[in-house]
Amino acid sequence: MPQHVVIIGAVALGPKAACRFKRLEPDSTVTMIDQEKMISYGGCGIPYFLSGDVSDPAQLRATSFNMLRDEKFFDKAKYVRVMTGAKAVSIDRKHQSVLVRNLETQEEETLHYDKLVIATGSIPNLLSVPGSDLPGIFTVSNMEDAIHIREQVAGGKVGNAVVIGAGAIGLEVAEALADLWGIETSVVEIRDQVLPGIVSPIMARMAQHHMEENGISFHLSEQVQEITGRDRVTGVRTDRRSIDADLVIMAAGVKPNSALAASAGLEISPRGTIVVNEKMQTSDPLIYAGGDCVEVQNLVTGRPAYYPLGSMANRQGRVIGTNLAGGDARFEGAVGSFIIKLFDISVASAGLSIASAEQEGFQAASGFMAQLDHAHFYPEKDIMYLELVVDKKSGRVLGIQGLGNRTEGMMARVSAVATTLKYRPTVADISNMEVPYSPPFSSAMDVLNALGNTMENILAGKNRVMDADQFAEWWENREDGKTFFLDCRGWGNAEPFVKKFPDHWKSIPQDELLDRIHEVPGDKRIVLICNTGVRSYEAQILLDHVGIRDTYNLQGGMAAVKKWGLDLL
Amino acid sequence: MPQHVVIIGAVALGPKAACRFKRLEPDSTVTMIDQEKMISYGGCGIPYFLSGDVSDPAQLRATSFNMLRDEKFFDKAKYVRVMTGAKAVSIDRKHQSVLVRNLETQEEETLHYDKLVIATGSIPNLLSVPGSDLPGIFTVSNMEDAIHIREQVAGGKVGNAVVIGAGAIGLEVAEALADLWGIETSVVEIRDQVLPGIVSPIMARMAQHHMEENGISFHLSEQVQEITGRDRVTGVRTDRRSIDADLVIMAAGVKPNSALAASAGLEISPRGTIVVNEKMQTSDPLIYAGGDCVEVQNLVTGRPAYYPLGSMANRQGRVIGTNLAGGDARFEGAVGSFIIKLFDISVASAGLSIASAEQEGFQAASGFMAQLDHAHFYPEKDIMYLELVVDKKSGRVLGIQGLGNRTEGMMARVSAVATTLKYRPTVADISNMEVPYSPPFSSAMDVLNALGNTMENILAGKNRVMDADQFAEWWENREDGKTFFLDCRGWGNAEPFVKKFPDHWKSIPQDELLDRIHEVPGDKRIVLICNTGVRSYEAQILLDHVGIRDTYNLQGGMAAVKKWGLDLL
Repeated sequence: MPQHVVIIGAVALGPKAACRFKRLEPDSTVTMIDQEKMISYGGCGIPYFLSGDVSDPAQLRATSFNMLRDEKFFDKAKYVRVMTGAKAVSIDRKHQSVLVRNLETQEEETLHYDKLVIATGSIPNLLSVPGSDLPGIFTVSNMEDAIHIREQVAGGKVGNAVVIGAGAIGLEVAEALADLWGIETSVVEIRDQVLPGIVSPIMARMAQHHMEENGISFHLSEQVQEITGRDRVTGVRTDRRSIDADLVIMAAGVKPNSALAASAGLEISPRGTIVVNEKMQTSDPLIYAGGDCVEVQNLVTGRPAYYPLGSMANRQGRVIGTNLAGGDARFEGAVGSFIIKLFDISVASAGLSIASAEQEGFQAASGFMAQLDHAHFYPEKDIMYLELVVDKKSGRVLGIQGLGNRTEGMMARVSAVATTLKYRPTVADISNMEVPYSPPFSSAMDVLNALGNTMENILAGKNRVMDADQFAEWWENREDGKTFFLDCRGWGNAEPFVKKFPDHWKSIPQDELLDRIHEVPGDKRIVLICNTGVRSYEAQILLDHVGIRDTYNLQGGMAAVKKWGLDLL
Repeated sequence: MPQHVVIIGAVALGPKAACRFKRLEPDSTVTMIDQEKMISYGGCGIPYFLSGDVSDPAQLRATSFNMLRDEKFFDKAKYVRVMTGAKAVSIDRKHQSVLVRNLETQEEETLHYDKLVIATGSIPNLLSVPGSDLPGIFTVSNMEDAIHIREQVAGGKVGNAVVIGAGAIGLEVAEALADLWGIETSVVEIRDQVLPGIVSPIMARMAQHHMEENGISFHLSEQVQEITGRDRVTGVRTDRRSIDADLVIMAAGVKPNSALAASAGLEISPRGTIVVNEKMQTSDPLIYAGGDCVEVQNLVTGRPAYYPLGSMANRQGRVIGTNLAGGDARFEGAVGSFIIKLFDISVASAGLSIASAEQEGFQAASGFMAQLDHAHFYPEKDIMYLELVVDKKSGRVLGIQGLGNRTEGMMARVSAVATTLKYRPTVADISNMEVPYSPPFSSAMDVLNALGNTMENILAGKNRVMDADQFAEWWENREDGKTFFLDCRGWGNAEPFVKKFPDHWKSIPQDELLDRIHEVPGDKRIVLICNTGVRSYEAQILLDHVGIRDTYNLQGGMAAVKKWGLDLL
């Protein structure tokens, strides 16, 4: 029997649910309402609109075949009625109706529903500090803000900008402002790393270093205390400094917009999300919800997690569309696959970082691998950095993250692992993981397999590793005489270091180590160094064999140290 | 207790097993023998050496840190003894020894082993036709042949070449000869498509078309009957034509080199491979084997399959190395992940094609998807073509294949599915597959998810599709009046077709279809056309709704038709 569906929210999930439902039940009707005038846009594209990569805001609202997704489009091509500038004031679950207010005329109207979809999305977090209401402060949560920001930067009115928050959106916006518009851009982050909660401190520092090389300034572990200015913003004051700013972007994350659902008496989680089951049904089976206003199961931990991502909204929207039509589609959860382009690099992750794994109660360990992305003899190639997070006891893989150039090579490796995480793979599964091989794309022993192998050796206690940050600390204190820095590479690689640091840098190529073992002191901790950590691992095994065991294999080698931001030469 | 391991074969698996074992058991000793002088080379790099992308053959034998992997390297850096130019004549299992002949001096020596590894690889298939022993005919199975070929082409002596076999190696070599050296190159293949057994006829034709656009000629379904010439090769005669050739490359696949194992009484499979268990042990538990001379379990079918690939050899080599040292490593099998670069495109696959699925007894169905690889608003983007193969009844995913540009985007999608195949995913798992999303890398509803969605609609009977080849046939017979070609795109896209074919090409944009439904005939089969198959699917649903059901959605749309090689304009 034909039914009438009302959908509140018309950005990502709403339109997807509406269109899927109408394709399954052409006889039924759909009314989709949104308080904004611009609907159905690719919000994830806003940083690229700010940068100028996307020239016209209409592109973010177009289909892939260049039709503007406006009210008329939904009417004529999708047979869906859309009301814009229309706010859902309240839901009357008993009478199955929504009270809707026209924001222009203030007229109210009651829409009956057989089924209802709540797609109210999220609200950007705003800092409540003095000056936070000054003109010149923006979020990047909707098209109108985006258009305002771009007008200002394109008008040449912005010399310097501060981005508050070093999460994904903050970094993308910082790149956009600095790269095309040449704006002096600073990022202030309250936590001690960029991309907190997403990647490890090492990866984060590598990403930060790359952005610094491209002109972005970072102020980590700093708290914004005031936004200064009289008629409009002129600066940001943190607990450590004052920064001039003609423009301030608040990118301090989002929170679920669940007030409407809450006031209708639907079950809300402690985090403030609308509680849904795998069918994306709320506590009222006639009402569905999805996207940025719900949380779903984290398939690694089995616990609820919040993923405010456009890709989630789209996939959940389709599940809802199917179920509205009486289907039995499920959204079982997610592992939080993530990727970002930052200037010339990509950073990606899936599952848990070691910090989040420990927070979740795992006894976690991590391993780090640096290796060429393609066959080493193939002319086009780049070093890729991967980190694996595992449960120590079971060897179960909990997460992966990586940093590489801006091709899709990083996406390939993280996708390969991400899609298997729900099946609880072990380290051996990574060692034998079957990514397609051909020299222009990968290695016969791909970096991903090498990561698994390294992790196995670490868990077995055979590969005892140290990270670039520990290396930096010991190197800084090298005059204390406690550390012996042993370069296991060929003389050609080691020579410039030995010449510059004759008292601190020792060269013994790995293939000469057995013959020159007497040159290795037995009374110091020994840092084993090569380009990427492979020959230094061989050296560690040899030293173990002769009874020298206070050794540390610099994982990722000098490649990682340099990428991390320490250039000794 | 220290043991002595003998390894027969020193190309890929042998060295990997040797080095892994020595790292685990430094006290034990390894002797690795090979009848060739050049060992431990990247055989998969030979096409890139032929093309000139790799300038020096030594690069294929170097480590990633540019050390030549010769006898001295294995001795000094890996503590492994290597004997080259040494042929294993026979294995005496009772006395645990191998009889080895020095091919220069013909002296023989007996090597005792505690454990033995057979890594004898494969032998290229040679055609037994008249003239097949003429000078100028090469395989690409070893470095010496490769060096000979390159000397000839670099010397300007080769004006035209024939490659026999349109498998991966054949196509890579054809590209190498034509691209850098400008050699007029033809490929002869006995079967009716390129990459037979790997991709569907549609994907194969797309790949072939791209290579034809780059100057390669193809002669499919043709059998070589003679290689002509007096002192050296001058041509190839098939059952349909004669082709001039200064150079002939035989790339007709390989067969396992298992004669030595067979004569030692080890169990050999019907295919001629050495039978091994998951630990890579032969029927003699002291003897291991791996690489191109064994077969492993196909993780989709559960049956043995033959994957002569360098990546398999490397991973299996590590498993053997671990087990030699008393470990319990397993190589559980493979799904046959595959990727190839052909000029400006990549072609990839994993699992079963529809033909191989049917051969294996599955009731298989396939779905095809064309969509942009990145967010449609992002400036850099390309259409990607994917095909999913599933079991009709269960919806279990059996395989995936795709064709895209030469970035790693295709690798990302195929890797994402390939690594899950052993867990028996269903179509719903593809719909919800979580590849990382960000506009420079993917779409909010990624092409992979869209592929799953399409497949679901096909299985549900809602999306009734046709392929480019069927379209080509009906289009060719358009004068018979049986088919109504309905272009659902906007007028801008449809106009040139309508102008060129006013009697055969009808334009009704999808968003006008409801109002113009009377223009659609009820007595013809209707081919629904758009750019990629999305709007035509919407049109099909609308036509179903009004009772017009003899409709065919052209999957992949005009994008696929053009890529397939039919350009109507």
